[in-house]
Amino acid sequence: MYDPTTDPDLESFVSVDPASDFPIQNLPFGVFSTDADRTPRIGVAIGDMILDCYYLSEHGRLDAGGMGARVFQSATLNRFLALGPTAWKEARATISELLAAGNATLQDDAVLRGACLHKASDVTMLLPVNIGDYTDFYSSREHAENVGTMFRGKDNALMPNWLHLPVGYHGRSSSIVVSGTPVRRPCGQLKPADSDPIYGATRRLDIELEAGFIVGVGNALGTQISVADADDHIFGMVLVNDWSARDIQKWEYVPLGPFLGKSFATTVSPWVVSLAALEPFRTSGPEQQPEPLPYLASGGDRSYDVHLEVDLIPSGSSEATTIIRSNMRHLYWDIRQQLAHHTVNGCNTRPGDLMASGTISGPKPESFGSLLERTWNGSEPLTLPDGGTRTFLLDGDTVVIRGYAAGDGYRVGFGDATGTILPAIGS
Amino acid sequence: MYDPTTDPDLESFVSVDPASDFPIQNLPFGVFSTDADRTPRIGVAIGDMILDCYYLSEHGRLDAGGMGARVFQSATLNRFLALGPTAWKEARATISELLAAGNATLQDDAVLRGACLHKASDVTMLLPVNIGDYTDFYSSREHAENVGTMFRGKDNALMPNWLHLPVGYHGRSSSIVVSGTPVRRPCGQLKPADSDPIYGATRRLDIELEAGFIVGVGNALGTQISVADADDHIFGMVLVNDWSARDIQKWEYVPLGPFLGKSFATTVSPWVVSLAALEPFRTSGPEQQPEPLPYLASGGDRSYDVHLEVDLIPSGSSEATTIIRSNMRHLYWDIRQQLAHHTVNGCNTRPGDLMASGTISGPKPESFGSLLERTWNGSEPLTLPDGGTRTFLLDGDTVVIRGYAAGDGYRVGFGDATGTILPAIGS
Repeated sequence: MYDPTTDPDLESFVSVDPASDFPIQNLPFGVFSTDADRTPRIGVAIGDMILDCYYLSEHGRLDAGGMGARVFQSATLNRFLALGPTAWKEARATISELLAAGNATLQDDAVLRGACLHKASDVTMLLPVNIGDYTDFYSSREHAENVGTMFRGKDNALMPNWLHLPVGYHGRSSSIVVSGTPVRRPCGQLKPADSDPIYGATRRLDIELEAGFIVGVGNALGTQISVADADDHIFGMVLVNDWSARDIQKWEYVPLGPFLGKSFATTVSPWVVSLAALEPFRTSGPEQQPEPLPYLASGGDRSYDVHLEVDLIPSGSSEATTIIRSNMRHLYWDIRQQLAHHTVNGCNTRPGDLMASGTISGPKPESFGSLLERTWNGSEPLTLPDGGTRTFLLDGDTVVIRGYAAGDGYRVGFGDATGTILPAIGS
Repeated sequence: MYDPTTDPDLESFVSVDPASDFPIQNLPFGVFSTDADRTPRIGVAIGDMILDCYYLSEHGRLDAGGMGARVFQSATLNRFLALGPTAWKEARATISELLAAGNATLQDDAVLRGACLHKASDVTMLLPVNIGDYTDFYSSREHAENVGTMFRGKDNALMPNWLHLPVGYHGRSSSIVVSGTPVRRPCGQLKPADSDPIYGATRRLDIELEAGFIVGVGNALGTQISVADADDHIFGMVLVNDWSARDIQKWEYVPLGPFLGKSFATTVSPWVVSLAALEPFRTSGPEQQPEPLPYLASGGDRSYDVHLEVDLIPSGSSEATTIIRSNMRHLYWDIRQQLAHHTVNGCNTRPGDLMASGTISGPKPESFGSLLERTWNGSEPLTLPDGGTRTFLLDGDTVVIRGYAAGDGYRVGFGDATGTILPAIGS
C-alpha cells in the first residue's frame, strides 16, 4: 500500500545531505535535552536538526488523533508507543507534512521554526524509552554456527533446538545506556586454565553488533501475539551493542546462561526508526528449513535490508577503521517470529520493551559481528592502519555501530551507537 | 545492638494472635487498595489489620526524618526504598510507636484510628514494588545437586563454577504477580523423545519455593556494592514462587538459560519483611568450602532461620496438604554475597529490584523445594490425603507458599504467596 511519507521524491524544507541518516522519509523518534532546558523532550530527527515534539504539542501543532498533551510532553516515548499503530501513523503523517518542502506552517513562521527546530549538535541525546524488560535473541545462524564451531567443533555447531525456535534470554535492563555513554571495563571471576578462579578485570572485552525492536503496544499476561498481528505491536528498531566480557561469560554461563559477562552495559542508538520508515526496505530472509511450527510461520519479505557497520577508533587515535560490515537481512529468525515466540507462553510485554536480535553475522569473515568471531577466538588479530593489532578491546578504544537502509539518493539510518572503554575500577 | 522495635515483649494495642505472621515486631510493608478507594496505598500489616501509611502521611502523622509526602502517598514502595537505612529505621520506629500498647495517638482517637486501620480481609493487596529488574539465583546446594544428579548423574551433579560464585540469571519482570493472581498454564515447544518438537501446553508444570530480597538503595553503573555494605542497600525480603514449565525449559535452555519455561508467571508475597524485622533470626549458614574469593567473603550469622512451607490444595478440594517443609538457612550463598557478586562487574541496581534465591531445598526429601525434586523427576508421585497423586500440577490446583521466623510466643512471617492454575489457552 502506498505510503506518502516514504515517497522517495518527498523533500523537506530543512536541507538534508544525501549521506544523512535522517531524510524526511525517516523521521525517527528520540528524546533529548538542551543546555538551556534540561527537561527531557521528545524529538524527531531531520537532517542535522531535531524537531521538538514537546514544543509543537505544547503549542497545539501536534495533536494527531486527539492523543493528548501527555504523550509528547513526556520524558520517554512510552506513552506514545502505547497508543498503537493508528496514532503512530497519524503522528508520522502530521510531522511529515509539517516538514515537507511545500508546507508553510513552520517555513513561514520564523519564531515557531526557531523554537521547534534545534541543531542536533547543540543537544544531548537521552535514552528514548523506559525499557521495562530487555530480551536478547540469538537469531543469526552464522553467529551461532561460528561460536558453536569454535567451542564444540563444526559437527556440533548448532544446538538441536536452534533451527526450531528463536533461542533467547532475559537481559539486564538497568544497564542499557544511550550512545555516547562510556563503558567501564568490568571486573569479575576469571578462570585460568590451570588454576582456581581469580578476581580481575576482563581481558576479553568484546562487542556484539545487533539490532533490536521496541514494543509499542504490549499484551496482557496469559495472552499471545501471533506473527500476523506482530506489526500492530512493534513500533520500530534501534541499533544495539551488547558489550560482552568473554572470559567472565565463559566461566559463569553454565547452566543458566549469560549474566555478569553482559550486564555491565548495553548501548543503544538514540533514534528509534519506525517500521513505517523501514517498510520500503523489506526483503526476503534466509530460507527456513525445517519449516517452523505453525505458530512461527512467517514469509514474504520478512526481513529488512539494512547495512550495518562497526568502526573501531583505537585508543590514542582519531582515525576510525571499519572492522565489520554486515546486514540485518542475514537474520534467520525475523522480529515477528521473535515476538510470537516470546509471547507463546502467555508472557506479557509492555510498551518500551527491547528485544534485540543477537549478534548479526553474515557468511564472510568481514561480516562477523563480534571480535570473538572476527579474530576467531583471538587467534587471528585484526591489523589496524597504524600497524597496531586488536583481538579484544583496550582501554580508550571507541566502538561505533552504524546502520542504514539505502534508498535511491537517500538513506534511512539510525545514527551512531557508540561507546568508549574506561579502565576497570581499581586499575 | 538492641533495637526496641524487635523487643519480644513489645505489644500492640491492636490484638494479634500468636499464630499471626504480623505482630508488632514485624511491621512489613505492602501496597493495597480498598473497594471504596481504588488508589494504591502503602500500608503496614499488624495482626488482621492494615495500617494506612498514605492516610497517616496525608494527615501529618508519618513524616519521619522529613521524608516528605510523596514517599508514602505513592502507588509503590520504591520512593521509600530509595531513601535508605536511616529513613527506614525512622519510619519503622514511628510506626512501632504509633501501634504500641502504651501509645495514645491512635488508641484514643476513634476517628483517626477508624480511618487509618483497615481490616486485612476488606482490602485488595497489590504488587508492593515496581520491579525494574528481576534476578534469580541458584543458591541452594541441595537443589543444584538434586537437579544435577537427575540430569547428569551423581558424580557430575555440581557444575565446576557452582562452589565459586552464586550462579544466577536475569528473569522476566513484567510477569511478576502478587499472591492470589491466577496462573495460566503456558503453551510452547515441547520435544518428545522420539519426534520433532511439537506445540502444546506444558505437561510438567512445577513450582519453585524461593525467597527474594528487594533492593532499597541502588548503585550507579560502574560501581560495586561490597558484602560489608550490602545491608545499606537491601530493604527486605519476600516469598517467591518461580513457576516453571519443565518440558518447555528442558528443550529451550541450551545454551542461554531458562526463558519461556519461567517467564509466564512469578508470584511474590504481598508483604516485604524488612531486614530489621528479620535481624533477631539471623543464623550461621552452611560452611563454604572452598573459601570464596575475597570479594565474596562473608561470615558470622549470614543467614536467616525462616521456616518455609508449601501447601497444595488439589483441584476440586478445599483441603490443603503441606507437601514441602524447608528453611531459608539452607541457602549456601547468602543475600549479601548475591548482591556483591551481582555488582562486581559494575552492574547498577535500582530501588525495587528483586533478587530471588533460587529453589530452597534442604537435605531431606520433604524439604526439596520443587515438584521436580519432590517426585524425583516425576518417578515418585506424591500421594494426597484423598488418595489422589501428583507429579506435576493439574489445572485447578492451588499452591500456597508460607514463611515465618519463630520467636518466643510470636512469629515474624510473610503472609501467603498463592496461585491457582488456569487451563491453557485453547484448551
